[in-house]
Amino acid sequence: MGGSKFVNPDDEKYAYLIGKMIAKEGWVLLNGGRPSGVMESSAKGAKENGGITVGILPTDQSDWASPYIDIPIVTGMGFARNVINILSSDIIVALPGSAGTISEIALALNHGKKVILFRFDVGLWIKDYQDRGQVFFVDKLEQLRKLMRKMLNNHFHL
Amino acid sequence: MGGSKFVNPDDEKYAYLIGKMIAKEGWVLLNGGRPSGVMESSAKGAKENGGITVGILPTDQSDWASPYIDIPIVTGMGFARNVINILSSDIIVALPGSAGTISEIALALNHGKKVILFRFDVGLWIKDYQDRGQVFFVDKLEQLRKLMRKMLNNHFHL
Amino acid sequence: MGGSKFVNPDDEKYAYLIGKMIAKEGWVLLNGGRPSGVMESSAKGAKENGGITVGILPTDQSDWASPYIDIPIVTGMGFARNVINILSSDIIVALPGSAGTISEIALALNHGKKVILFRFDVGLWIKDYQDRGQVFFVDKLEQLRKLMRKMLNNHFHL
Amino acid sequence: MGGSKFVNPDDEKYAYLIGKMIAKEGWVLLNGGRPSGVMESSAKGAKENGGITVGILPTDQSDWASPYIDIPIVTGMGFARNVINILSSDIIVALPGSAGTISEIALALNHGKKVILFRFDVGLWIKDYQDRGQVFFVDKLEQLRKLMRKMLNNHFHL
Repeated sequence: MGGSKFVNPDDEKYAYLIGKMIAKEGWVLLNGGRPSGVMESSAKGAKENGGITVGILPTDQSDWASPYIDIPIVTGMGFARNVINILSSDIIVALPGSAGTISEIALALNHGKKVILFRFDVGLWIKDYQDRGQVFFVDKLEQLRKLMRKMLNNHFHL
Repeated sequence: MGGSKFVNPDDEKYAYLIGKMIAKEGWVLLNGGRPSGVMESSAKGAKENGGITVGILPTDQSDWASPYIDIPIVTGMGFARNVINILSSDIIVALPGSAGTISEIALALNHGKKVILFRFDVGLWIKDYQDRGQVFFVDKLEQLRKLMRKMLNNHFHL
Repeated sequence: MGGSKFVNPDDEKYAYLIGKMIAKEGWVLLNGGRPSGVMESSAKGAKENGGITVGILPTDQSDWASPYIDIPIVTGMGFARNVINILSSDIIVALPGSAGTISEIALALNHGKKVILFRFDVGLWIKDYQDRGQVFFVDKLEQLRKLMRKMLNNHFHL
Repeated sequence: MGGSKFVNPDDEKYAYLIGKMIAKEGWVLLNGGRPSGVMESSAKGAKENGGITVGILPTDQSDWASPYIDIPIVTGMGFARNVINILSSDIIVALPGSAGTISEIALALNHGKKVILFRFDVGLWIKDYQDRGQVFFVDKLEQLRKLMRKMLNNHFHL
């Protein structure tokens, strides 16, 4: 997850590299599926490196998907589809974004999901969740890879 | 909107008074419909003062509604129903809460809705939206009434 | 429920009278909320006779509601909102329609709801549900009123 | 699509063979994802023959998916997820079922999608859609394969 408009070039670059890393590890990348910002960059990174990409689209036509999405899931539900992004993900990784991204992070925490914030400071409200071990702050790719491996080995069956 | 668990007694009291004020002004109170926290108190305040109350339930049975809800809307959609709360409201008033409430505030701002934060500090991420005139901070009931009247007169047809 | 396009004038007339009857009985009318066909006529019938009308809109703006709807519920979810229509209704009354109406009737039966078909023959597939007492065929207003009173007294608390 | 309970053994056998055919053609199988009836058999047929399977789950946990589903999409939206099944599919193939299946067929037609009924007679209401070329009746596997190839070549970009 992350910004779709006015995205910092560094964040787009990291999104690409995170997508690539997910593909190289043999995991499936899932995002909001549209051709912009962090969504587009992460899908491109995964797709150009042999990964499988799933996009949960807000629209009622698959034409709106990024060209780097293999499997567009067409919901026709607008922002209500954000819940599906969260529930369908084993781990949520969030790059900087504005209200849309904040909304997804909060939704994920409310559902008991684990969230990794990559170079993103969302404010004091998250402290309670950090204390409970639901939130992790990461700023290096290698650190992200290790944390995700550990989380998937310990807690999930994929 | 606001917390559903571990709610501060002051917040429950304010929720009741805000519900009462909404009823007295002849407005319709809409919330998440469950019998807990700020939802229950605000519905009770409206209902005991002659108002109409609408609850957008996450469950697939109307049995889960607060007894102070006149019109339960049964969605069976879990937290995806939060989008409906936001889209169906002319003004969103948020009391203190945790991730669930933050998620609704962020969703509302992302949809271009106006949000009034009542005695609730959500952190720095909201500053951009405050600068654009989408967010208002209020800590007194009378101030809330005046602001809501002004917003409804200027911008909405009910 | 019923057709929204190319609706038979008789069906529109009956929709109006059913809306009126619902209002006179003190019940709440809930439908899809748009300003066309059976939806519009039933809301008009209820509203012009002192009833309360609720419309579950597929759009993400309340501007699309029929003017006879008191309480527009704005879902932004397209046809996924049909599930909400069904789950939120104590009794489903269907007038003739095409695929959209068939879809709602089938959805209602699948959820275990009771469905009254008013002058509408939907085909053989419904026979199993008729045998289980979930479907009723009615062609007169007075017969509909009696059946609904009986169903609400015996099975529901409003 | 098709029945999930009390499914005829012949229909389960056909569901398996249709899943297998979809995999052999290099297409993606998408269904409701649960481990029962036509859903389970079609996913098994695809998975055991090298295909990719996507399941749109009604539940809020991926644990409820059939073991033959590669990519569970977790919606937490109950039957509202049927709309996603329809919107995300390029072609809808329906085997015999009851109200749930009828509801999906009607929803698909209402969205302008093409539907192939495999050994399934749903009643007279479908005749209008058949006349418009939206519905096809098929009772042999080879005939289904040819029709699907033609539809995908002419109308879709996958």
